[in-house]
Amino acid sequence: MPKHAKLNFTLDEYASRLDKTRAVMLARNIDCLIVVDPSNMAWLTGYDGWSFYTHQCVILRQDHQPIWWGRGIDAPGAVRTTYLDEHNILSYPDYFVQSDSCHPMDHLSRVLGELHLEQGSVGVEMENYYFSAAAFMSLQKHLPAAKLIDATALVNWQRIIKSEQELGYMRSAARIVENMHARIFDIIEPGLAKNELAAEIFHTGIKGVDEHWGDYPAILPLLPTGMDATAAHLTWDNSRLKAGDITFFEIAGCHKRYHCPLSRTISLGKPPQKYLDAEKAVLEAMHAGLENARPGKLCEDIAIAFFDTLEKHGFTKDNRTGYSIGMSYPPDWGERTISLRRGDRTELQKNMTFHFMPALWLDDGGLEITESVVLTDSGYESLANVEQRLLVK
Amino acid sequence: MPKHAKLNFTLDEYASRLDKTRAVMLARNIDCLIVVDPSNMAWLTGYDGWSFYTHQCVILRQDHQPIWWGRGIDAPGAVRTTYLDEHNILSYPDYFVQSDSCHPMDHLSRVLGELHLEQGSVGVEMENYYFSAAAFMSLQKHLPAAKLIDATALVNWQRIIKSEQELGYMRSAARIVENMHARIFDIIEPGLAKNELAAEIFHTGIKGVDEHWGDYPAILPLLPTGMDATAAHLTWDNSRLKAGDITFFEIAGCHKRYHCPLSRTISLGKPPQKYLDAEKAVLEAMHAGLENARPGKLCEDIAIAFFDTLEKHGFTKDNRTGYSIGMSYPPDWGERTISLRRGDRTELQKNMTFHFMPALWLDDGGLEITESVVLTDSGYESLANVEQRLLVK
Repeated sequence: MPKHAKLNFTLDEYASRLDKTRAVMLARNIDCLIVVDPSNMAWLTGYDGWSFYTHQCVILRQDHQPIWWGRGIDAPGAVRTTYLDEHNILSYPDYFVQSDSCHPMDHLSRVLGELHLEQGSVGVEMENYYFSAAAFMSLQKHLPAAKLIDATALVNWQRIIKSEQELGYMRSAARIVENMHARIFDIIEPGLAKNELAAEIFHTGIKGVDEHWGDYPAILPLLPTGMDATAAHLTWDNSRLKAGDITFFEIAGCHKRYHCPLSRTISLGKPPQKYLDAEKAVLEAMHAGLENARPGKLCEDIAIAFFDTLEKHGFTKDNRTGYSIGMSYPPDWGERTISLRRGDRTELQKNMTFHFMPALWLDDGGLEITESVVLTDSGYESLANVEQRLLVK
Repeated sequence: MPKHAKLNFTLDEYASRLDKTRAVMLARNIDCLIVVDPSNMAWLTGYDGWSFYTHQCVILRQDHQPIWWGRGIDAPGAVRTTYLDEHNILSYPDYFVQSDSCHPMDHLSRVLGELHLEQGSVGVEMENYYFSAAAFMSLQKHLPAAKLIDATALVNWQRIIKSEQELGYMRSAARIVENMHARIFDIIEPGLAKNELAAEIFHTGIKGVDEHWGDYPAILPLLPTGMDATAAHLTWDNSRLKAGDITFFEIAGCHKRYHCPLSRTISLGKPPQKYLDAEKAVLEAMHAGLENARPGKLCEDIAIAFFDTLEKHGFTKDNRTGYSIGMSYPPDWGERTISLRRGDRTELQKNMTFHFMPALWLDDGGLEITESVVLTDSGYESLANVEQRLLVK
């Protein structure tokens, strides 16, 4: 291991991650796994950098150290942030970048050929932001004898149960998001421009709390007000808040790429009765859901209890009410494995972590009061401690 | 047009964009274009939201208003931010999201069938973060009679010459990035933690300058120091700066999704001679390149003049030295069309905009002194005005 590498985990922890992943590869007859998801790359090797806008991957086999492969100018980043030996850091020349006459994956095929994998079974993450249709076509063309196997989320599923160190980082992220919400409540008032509020959210989130320094979240702050909050994913502009406005804040603290998302809603002045009714429904339904958040239950048990209770109060929600969280890179802070919804029969286990996300997007605004939780031996623990209600100022 | 839509351009400007794009579709025999690139979606319709982590697109045909298609909870965002009639905003149910039993593109195929496009020629952006291999396989499977045509960057190429309104937004972004660099120089000192510096960069960038409010940049700040700056794309941690450190800041101002990237490098104390030599080489080479930045020349003319001059000074750079910029969404603020490198024979035209990016990543650190420029009738104009040198404090 190069002694300058800035590893966030012990080599033992990385080794156990490789073991878990290789066991699944063996069971699925995958000789070689091409890991393009930046979160999976980081989880397996430590690699960290905003280089995912050009093609890169980790090549994982049995009995060999993983190989990092990417753009030439990013190879030094792999030296700096991974435990990999330098001879396992490979790169392609810059003329492959965003070219219309060749594709970086053409180069990867050559590398796989040199590793004698051209007739092997090669797992690829078919459903990933960083594995384009063109990337797949290139591999198909240049590795005609290889068997390309869909290995979407194979690594993601190995990540769903968190280690103590991972939970430690998520607790750091929780301290950060608590501070972000405190800062928002402190400064929000009629007349404040949304972008000024967003600037303070970023500042608080990146500064962090003591040694819990802030990394960038994989989704940037969403803070829609009023009618804009009927939509789930609007960001901000420079409009000024006014009395009576209701704004939700969907934000996350992030530490060493580990997230603690947490949403709260603030009303500037007394909220309409409809929002108080919605608040009551959401909180009761959330608690009904969380009563099922314990090992032995299924993911859908949480969702069904939540949806049933919500409906008793006359509200409906026709979208999922949470998902697995942990390490992530843009554009999504979810792990893209477990969803809290009907039909997801994944068994709950200790040290799984979820963003329980009972958001309601109504016809004239939105209400988000959410919790990020870790499952314990017999139940759950909230990662962050921020008052669970529709906040009024 | 719903009167609540927050459009950044006139309807006439959107209409001319549709016209330009449709003309190319006609020439290429594309009946229907599936536009998944969020920048292209926004450029054509105004759509703006952090919803690109689930599948979405704009469906473009001749003689019909475009259609926005995406996740149910994001449809209200399309109502809020586009000029589209509500009947042209279509959505898929939430059970398609990150499911392992169905794909959102299965639903899109149904929609295309209802539009009688199942036997048509359908253009798709094969090389895009938001068109996964699985998305392509779904369309292939569910539209067996359609002719899927690679239309990668078809829309991007229509965006390379900027309108006055677009240039206005980029000039706003330039004011912002000037302020960001001023703030960095103001506060940087030995002992300052990198994340605290990053927090100030975000705060200054999002707050913006007067009416030039800050939007989020498509690449978040890169600020590697010393050996970390041998790599191109590292972000930050909480390490503290010390005397003698050399740090580059690759950042952008952003206004209404339009970017002005600009990098500067700061040495805390007198830099080693090697860096002064590199500074001299880079600046001379940059100016040699920029002498070719005028209509009638080719993109590679800039690059060749730059590389030749750099080599005379004993430095080599084996990667591209710039790219087209404008509107963008994560993970890349480039337009993914023109690269300033040998072999790119695109003819330069007035109102093209580039990030001229003569970065040197050396064996013990990095040097970035860059310019964002707009081409004029007879030359170029720098968008931002920040002292062009290796800054010393």
